[in-house]
Amino acid sequence: MPETRVVIVGGGFGGLYAARALRKAKVRITLVDQRNHHLFQPLLYQVATAALSPAHIAVALRRVLRRQKNATVILGEAVAVDLKARRVQLRDGALDYDFLILATGATHSYFGHGEWAAHAPGLKTLEDAVEIRRRVLLSYEAAERETDPKRRASLLTFAVVGAGPTGVELAGALAEIARHVLASDFRTIDPASARVVLIEAGPRVLPAFTPDLSVAAQRRLERMGVQVILHKAVTSIDEAGVTLFDGERLQSRCVLWAAGVQASPLARSLGVPLDKAGRVIVEPDLSLPGAAEAFVIGDLASVPGVPGLAPAAIQGGRYAARRIQDRIAGRETPPFRYLDKGNLATIGRAAAVVQIGRLHSEGFVAWLLWLFVHLMTLIGFRNRLVVMVEWAAVYLRYERGARLITGPVHRLLPEATPSPAAGPGAPT
Amino acid sequence: MPETRVVIVGGGFGGLYAARALRKAKVRITLVDQRNHHLFQPLLYQVATAALSPAHIAVALRRVLRRQKNATVILGEAVAVDLKARRVQLRDGALDYDFLILATGATHSYFGHGEWAAHAPGLKTLEDAVEIRRRVLLSYEAAERETDPKRRASLLTFAVVGAGPTGVELAGALAEIARHVLASDFRTIDPASARVVLIEAGPRVLPAFTPDLSVAAQRRLERMGVQVILHKAVTSIDEAGVTLFDGERLQSRCVLWAAGVQASPLARSLGVPLDKAGRVIVEPDLSLPGAAEAFVIGDLASVPGVPGLAPAAIQGGRYAARRIQDRIAGRETPPFRYLDKGNLATIGRAAAVVQIGRLHSEGFVAWLLWLFVHLMTLIGFRNRLVVMVEWAAVYLRYERGARLITGPVHRLLPEATPSPAAGPGAPT
Repeated sequence: MPETRVVIVGGGFGGLYAARALRKAKVRITLVDQRNHHLFQPLLYQVATAALSPAHIAVALRRVLRRQKNATVILGEAVAVDLKARRVQLRDGALDYDFLILATGATHSYFGHGEWAAHAPGLKTLEDAVEIRRRVLLSYEAAERETDPKRRASLLTFAVVGAGPTGVELAGALAEIARHVLASDFRTIDPASARVVLIEAGPRVLPAFTPDLSVAAQRRLERMGVQVILHKAVTSIDEAGVTLFDGERLQSRCVLWAAGVQASPLARSLGVPLDKAGRVIVEPDLSLPGAAEAFVIGDLASVPGVPGLAPAAIQGGRYAARRIQDRIAGRETPPFRYLDKGNLATIGRAAAVVQIGRLHSEGFVAWLLWLFVHLMTLIGFRNRLVVMVEWAAVYLRYERGARLITGPVHRLLPEATPSPAAGPGAPT
Repeated sequence: MPETRVVIVGGGFGGLYAARALRKAKVRITLVDQRNHHLFQPLLYQVATAALSPAHIAVALRRVLRRQKNATVILGEAVAVDLKARRVQLRDGALDYDFLILATGATHSYFGHGEWAAHAPGLKTLEDAVEIRRRVLLSYEAAERETDPKRRASLLTFAVVGAGPTGVELAGALAEIARHVLASDFRTIDPASARVVLIEAGPRVLPAFTPDLSVAAQRRLERMGVQVILHKAVTSIDEAGVTLFDGERLQSRCVLWAAGVQASPLARSLGVPLDKAGRVIVEPDLSLPGAAEAFVIGDLASVPGVPGLAPAAIQGGRYAARRIQDRIAGRETPPFRYLDKGNLATIGRAAAVVQIGRLHSEGFVAWLLWLFVHLMTLIGFRNRLVVMVEWAAVYLRYERGARLITGPVHRLLPEATPSPAAGPGAPT
């Protein structure tokens, strides 16, 4: 009897934990991802703000699964799923399955304004993070050489669109970089004069938290020097800045996007109903309507009451693994139930907000909890150790260890940067 | 009286140490570099082979010079020097000087075969290192999915051209990756079957060392599984492999270039005599013939008996700084004398060759010395600590912490990779 073939698409939290939960099952697992690494997304903003290196929060998928002999990892891009034929179409091949777990996650959404992407990068991949780091650091470099005060001000204005956890974390880190990290590194500009603006269309920051924590987070952001703008949607973004719905204009050469997410485009190939964020509406057991052997988990799935957080993806992955084993054994499985593990977001060097059941905490203790949870859930002892060293450097000395601008040399100094010939004896 | 303006072009070992040696001088220093970071080049091959992250061996120039108030760092690309007008032309500006220190280093040379660059990347910048890492890791990923034995063999053949320290270090690390690091990570290929070939046109590896150490290094490389080919120049490189001068053909999808260097092109703008590697022929005080206020140091300078090594660049930078201060004070300066600090190259996990004066050492003790020297000369305590952790992981567990393939997704799987549709039930 041939072994049961389980294909898992996506090596994020959902896919990876599903594969691991199947380690003792008599199945042959193929995990396919277009990246060779699992990414610890909750710390991605720390790469974008030069605190951590990409390798600190990413680990090769085949390294994680090296000892799990029933699992094969392949690098490949899934472009469509044929539910009838039970086949995943890759860009350069195909994979047949008996059971399928789709866990390709989400990407950022510009609400129909794809043209904003060039001017306001989002934060989902390591490449995104390195690009944001590059833009932030280049802004200061260009400002140091700029002599026109208006242009300099727009180079030193950082706008973050969207005040969910990612937006809040980015804005907080940008304020710290301006006030502390870069404080004495420049000669003609004062980094502390940089302006960090957090723009949110809704009525409060961190809408997934309770209102008291939103207020606390906003107050702390403001104390750190972040200007918080609420109730104002963005109506346009171009290379020179952002326009808000009431016509207010913000001149900024560095706009970051943390506003919307949409499901990965693979969902559209399924021919099943999607919600308005493009996520797949699944059955109570996370399977597809009409295709009980195909599961959708994590940010790709639309399940009432289940948020797009890592713990939800992990629980979905483990549930799908259990359901597959029950199906093989002819057992019943109760429907998927999400266990709320709480919600954490960091604001700055020694501040976070934490909401776990009835526990609401804000400030230093919340931040210690945040540190602990994230350090412990990082995969790999080496990563935990190195990240601890890096965080200690950030905490004790405001030192950010990854202040690198990389990329092709000709892109280093953006075309739009003004180029005043420093006159004799005036190298700005 | 206006302050004396010193312009330093290049933030490598020469330029950075020159700037630091001028910290107490009554001069106004402008250090210009097209990168924002100083790069510790001796460890670049460890980034290329996934042991270290870019940020471990690079540090922001303005961070290093933050407390040196007579120094300004600017990000800019020097394109020409007008010695008569005493002006450095930038791509977007200009800098006037009273004294000039040129320290723009070297880049790789393909001996007139620029078309080889696309197929055989060299190793001079962080971007080069990440590109090499990407190609090496992608070769294994593609081999895992390849079913044709010939194609698989060419994907698992790594050719390194040039057996100087960089070539030897790369070849040694590639052999270790194949034999140990990746040993149990794949399902269809055996990484230990990978072939690492080191090709050298001259009669021995590590020609800058004494013959006994060359022999010892070669023997050790061969014991590690590296095939060493001597006396054979490369006559062509294309996307499928390398052809040697006797017609021998090596099918390899991953060729790395460590053969030739040439001085940075800025030298050509000076209108002074260059040697055949494009380096500037300088006076005994490292100044330019006919322009006593302009100095050339490091890999950009041609000085008889002085090698292209970090200690030589550092000594040149310090000498130029001293000479400038003596000139300002109206003092004489004895000519530049290079103090030979010896030569080190690592071969593998616990082996190196060291030549310091009459001391010739090879093996574990030499490797400990290599470790110590490189760790101690890294800039920044945090970097030293983190690199120690990473090296401990490599040494104790053959764990390489930076196994990341990054880059635009569509480039992840090279076009030339064959794409066998895994048949039903055969996800390789």
